[in-house]
Amino acid sequence: MDLILASQSPRRKALLEQFGLTFSVQVIPTTEESAGNPLYVARENASRKALPVSLANPGCLVLGADTIVTLDGHILGKPVDEAEAREMLDFLGGREHEVTTCVALCSNGQVRREFSETTKVQFRHLTRQEIEAYVLTGEPLDKAGGYGIQGFGGLLVKSIKGCYYNVVGLPMPSLAEHLRELGIEVFSRK
Amino acid sequence: MDLILASQSPRRKALLEQFGLTFSVQVIPTTEESAGNPLYVARENASRKALPVSLANPGCLVLGADTIVTLDGHILGKPVDEAEAREMLDFLGGREHEVTTCVALCSNGQVRREFSETTKVQFRHLTRQEIEAYVLTGEPLDKAGGYGIQGFGGLLVKSIKGCYYNVVGLPMPSLAEHLRELGIEVFSRK
Repeated sequence: MDLILASQSPRRKALLEQFGLTFSVQVIPTTEESAGNPLYVARENASRKALPVSLANPGCLVLGADTIVTLDGHILGKPVDEAEAREMLDFLGGREHEVTTCVALCSNGQVRREFSETTKVQFRHLTRQEIEAYVLTGEPLDKAGGYGIQGFGGLLVKSIKGCYYNVVGLPMPSLAEHLRELGIEVFSRK
Repeated sequence: MDLILASQSPRRKALLEQFGLTFSVQVIPTTEESAGNPLYVARENASRKALPVSLANPGCLVLGADTIVTLDGHILGKPVDEAEAREMLDFLGGREHEVTTCVALCSNGQVRREFSETTKVQFRHLTRQEIEAYVLTGEPLDKAGGYGIQGFGGLLVKSIKGCYYNVVGLPMPSLAEHLRELGIEVFSRK
């Protein structure tokens, strides 16, 4: 069964490539949910991304995913500008937040698997200079919560509890298990 | 101050590059300690790697590091062959082990900073087929504990508690803080 990634995220694409998957990318623009219970929002968005692509590609398995960052019940989206990025990083510094990624695997317009994973991320205490230097790398702007753990943002993180890849954008170990059950092998012999 | 990495590990080199550090690599072969208290072994090896290089390069800061994998007090080294790799992975499956990286920062034949970090790593339950498929990727052979979290081995890991980069081979966030205190900036403006 052919796999299609219904996401524009370069990080998700890189993760699937890193683990040896063969896939194509296809995105059909959709309205994203942004209000409500965080888990509901992420599940809803994951399937909204995948379902239309699965309808347009009968017989293919389509992967939709949504990653949300929450602290004290607030969803931290992607900062719209540097000022908001600074604010978010200041809010995250010295605290533990949660990163939840929901995954929807769809085919022929139906959700076949839906699962989510949450990782707790503890940030170091950040100085004003550190926040400033990080914002100036340009990394925060297109990322939920204003940081990317796989880039320079990794230096802001003291420790995590849970799956690392989940924070990058896809919970690869559990995704691999689901894909395997659906007949798609994730890594093969070199 | 120029930075020298006293390690042959391609993973450590990649980590320093990923975070924008400028450095050279220089290795002076030394006898490694392998018996005794795990923390003692790792500290001893980290400074044994760095000290001779620092003597040969006056005025440079030399980074030595050693990563050890332990389960129930046993140190799991690098498997010598596929059979031992299978054994180690079978031992790790379904359990939590610890990965400790010790770092020694030396100059002019003296240890200037020495610190270590431990990350707990929980493996998924592994089937015989999974172990077999992973061993056949060739990844286990040159890695302590028989897996690499940054490669296909990441799929074997259910969750971690602590620093992710520490499991790859260097605790980058704390290393960055130490380097900054010694006058070496870890990431700079793009």
